[in-house]
Amino acid sequence: MKEEAAPWITYRPELKVLDCTIRDGGLVNDSQFTDDQVRAVYEACVEAGLDYMEIGYKNDPEVFSPDKFGAWRHCHEEDMRRAVGDHSFKSTGMKLCAMADAGAKSNWEKQIIPAKDSVLDMIRVACYVHQISEAADMLSHCHELGYETCLNIMAISIVQDAEIDQVLKIAATTPALAVVVVDSYGNLYREQIDYLVKKYAKAVEGAGMDVGIHAHNNLQLAFANTIEAIILGANRADGTLLGMGRGAGNCPLEILLGFLRNPKFDLRPILKVIQDVILPLREQYDWGPSIPYNITGQMNQHPRSAIQYRGGDTPDDYLGFYNQVVSDV
Amino acid sequence: MKEEAAPWITYRPELKVLDCTIRDGGLVNDSQFTDDQVRAVYEACVEAGLDYMEIGYKNDPEVFSPDKFGAWRHCHEEDMRRAVGDHSFKSTGMKLCAMADAGAKSNWEKQIIPAKDSVLDMIRVACYVHQISEAADMLSHCHELGYETCLNIMAISIVQDAEIDQVLKIAATTPALAVVVVDSYGNLYREQIDYLVKKYAKAVEGAGMDVGIHAHNNLQLAFANTIEAIILGANRADGTLLGMGRGAGNCPLEILLGFLRNPKFDLRPILKVIQDVILPLREQYDWGPSIPYNITGQMNQHPRSAIQYRGGDTPDDYLGFYNQVVSDV
Repeated sequence: MKEEAAPWITYRPELKVLDCTIRDGGLVNDSQFTDDQVRAVYEACVEAGLDYMEIGYKNDPEVFSPDKFGAWRHCHEEDMRRAVGDHSFKSTGMKLCAMADAGAKSNWEKQIIPAKDSVLDMIRVACYVHQISEAADMLSHCHELGYETCLNIMAISIVQDAEIDQVLKIAATTPALAVVVVDSYGNLYREQIDYLVKKYAKAVEGAGMDVGIHAHNNLQLAFANTIEAIILGANRADGTLLGMGRGAGNCPLEILLGFLRNPKFDLRPILKVIQDVILPLREQYDWGPSIPYNITGQMNQHPRSAIQYRGGDTPDDYLGFYNQVVSDV
Repeated sequence: MKEEAAPWITYRPELKVLDCTIRDGGLVNDSQFTDDQVRAVYEACVEAGLDYMEIGYKNDPEVFSPDKFGAWRHCHEEDMRRAVGDHSFKSTGMKLCAMADAGAKSNWEKQIIPAKDSVLDMIRVACYVHQISEAADMLSHCHELGYETCLNIMAISIVQDAEIDQVLKIAATTPALAVVVVDSYGNLYREQIDYLVKKYAKAVEGAGMDVGIHAHNNLQLAFANTIEAIILGANRADGTLLGMGRGAGNCPLEILLGFLRNPKFDLRPILKVIQDVILPLREQYDWGPSIPYNITGQMNQHPRSAIQYRGGDTPDDYLGFYNQVVSDV
């Protein structure tokens, strides 16, 4: 230990943690959380000292029908207030955010009200690379409405290098406080995370933006990739309770908090809400690493075929799924 | 990609993969595998192109009573031959090995027969740091009996740096082909793995020994740490089917094989034996990442308290377990 310090013993105060259980976990259950469930998650996040909680999507009820999807797919102000009251950053120390998708999923010009009238502190804009121009417009719009903003560029593992460079050039001109490496397919390994985080950091260096990390757990690498990004300087990390999320799920927030050494974080409320609220949900819904999700992750594919397979007649015929996937490319 | 290659696209032919499902997984079920189960795993490992399969412990029946423990805790020659016939490396391309513990667990001077009379190709000696002198004697003994040998130094996350240096100095004088970084408590993060793998590599450099990695999954880092070690040059990697192993389990072999690009490996027989043989076992036994194992991993403790808790009345009262552990240190 003479030459090397042990940097993992201390912490970086500027690192911010975001829980996106209700938002990303909502892809598991069509955002059908009860008000009580959302309130319990909210209170746990506040008590645990998290920096942000993402309470859902700001998506269009005409596309995501309220007959099928719960309130957290649209995040109308009155729905949010039932769960979080008159939330404020001042009284809780935590910021509340929602995600708006570029493209036809959200009707952002109509749906997003001025920040002064909302419990939301931040809007995260999610886009695929080809949607970057609209995403930039959305970020400006939300910024003008008074929100903090953040940009999540999705499915980055299937994007060509030159396109990433181009997207980041545009991202750096937006008011977003951070641009997030999103491994939607849970495909990336450590060296690839390194490559991307360094690339993002370089691209947004002059703009004073943070780099963030949003990882999926297809290869049981969500936590590993999250801390890898943190080690390389990413200052925004996403997680969900018990890794709740579509398919293999996300970086488990409880493991992430256990790694972080900032004493402001308290693991207890997180454990409590997991056992009270999230664990019962896992009896109803399938998420978390399993071999079909491993396979789509390894193949750099969207998990939808694996999700479908897991919901079918032979969810544990792994070889059958493998043969289906390899014969289908 | 101009300056950086993408090394993850190719492979290193000298990297050797070892399946230790029956050996380390035997800590889950007191090594009570049937002959059919062991045969199925053996055949799958051969078909998959693995380099080694570890078939059990060479431990002392006087310490591990045959009333309680299955044949794979002792690996008598006649028991092994029931499952693997007259196994030979020549006919299968795979080597068979067993583990012998230093200390009172094995009676190695009596139990281990000459290699020419055995289906075993290698003996892996496992020791804690304070047992290194006996381990060195065991390695010499097994080497003289005609076996390949390998040294697994356990529970390395609780060992002082100066002790590791001393142990490695002795390890480098033994006939072992490899010395393995063993994270018994599933406590280590990437930077710590880096530190250890580099230290091991430097220590055994002159001796022409390989470095190996044996990871546990308490923090969902077993696979991540395994590939990290591989990236840094470790040429021996351990895994188990579906991560079967005590507590949080091991590096899942199926994920590891999916990462490795050597075309000699075939994932199919591995998937098949998992769904046919291992998945039914998981309905009987608790292993794999769960929050109590996360907690002992984070606290750098042996998983025994978590295993006990998971077998008790309130296996999912995570907060209760957390409070127990933090009040007990």
